[in-house]
Amino acid sequence: MTFALDPRLAADTLLVGDLPLSRVLLMNDSRFPWLILVPRRGRLSELHDLSRHERAALIEETARAGEKLKSLTSAAKINIGALGNIVSQLHVHVVARFEGDAAWPGPVWGAGMAAPYSSAAAQELVRDLVVALGLAGA
Amino acid sequence: MTFALDPRLAADTLLVGDLPLSRVLLMNDSRFPWLILVPRRGRLSELHDLSRHERAALIEETARAGEKLKSLTSAAKINIGALGNIVSQLHVHVVARFEGDAAWPGPVWGAGMAAPYSSAAAQELVRDLVVALGLAGA
Repeated sequence: MTFALDPRLAADTLLVGDLPLSRVLLMNDSRFPWLILVPRRGRLSELHDLSRHERAALIEETARAGEKLKSLTSAAKINIGALGNIVSQLHVHVVARFEGDAAWPGPVWGAGMAAPYSSAAAQELVRDLVVALGLAGA
Repeated sequence: MTFALDPRLAADTLLVGDLPLSRVLLMNDSRFPWLILVPRRGRLSELHDLSRHERAALIEETARAGEKLKSLTSAAKINIGALGNIVSQLHVHVVARFEGDAAWPGPVWGAGMAAPYSSAAAQELVRDLVVALGLAGA
């Protein structure tokens, strides 16, 4: 089955680019620097639906995204999550957290309303992420 | 640095056993069948603090725990998370979710108060998990 991004994920995010396995999206919520990685592998829903090889790639892409996001934002902690209770298409959240942020120390999922980026702020952050993740030219 | 389980994780959980990389714990909250995997590798806090080899092992153990927990409980969805805003020791939550459970469709973290298992129910679930995860003799 070919890959098609769930329209709800598409509506809530901005495109950053493609890593070898995953499409990288930026959640359009300026309260938290928040990436979403979506393996481009049809519509799987659980981690155990991937092959072992794909899982190894996914955790490397997740760790690298977290490391780069942490260093780009000087975050206190990276939160990683794959929930899928609402959008079942397998996707991994990688969120930069700060003491005193809008949901600290609770989870970001379901916490209040998103505060969309201004167009200029979104462009700048996407550009920084493209460079940090080595996606230049994507 | 030798491995020592964070005392807050120890206080909230029951021991299931050890996989090759991770200690497997059962959260003492009967509202959700909820495992926690803690890599026995000193006090790391981020996924990117592990080696690539350890990450590959961790995602395999996480996927296997999720698959077994889903099949044991007939859950609708497995939720996976590594947050660490409160307890920084790297640990991965693997939670069986059901439509209409106490936090559905929101995350379990920070949702209400834990409802501890009875001693008999905990023993039975731990025994089932030991078998499902191939930890017999642990």
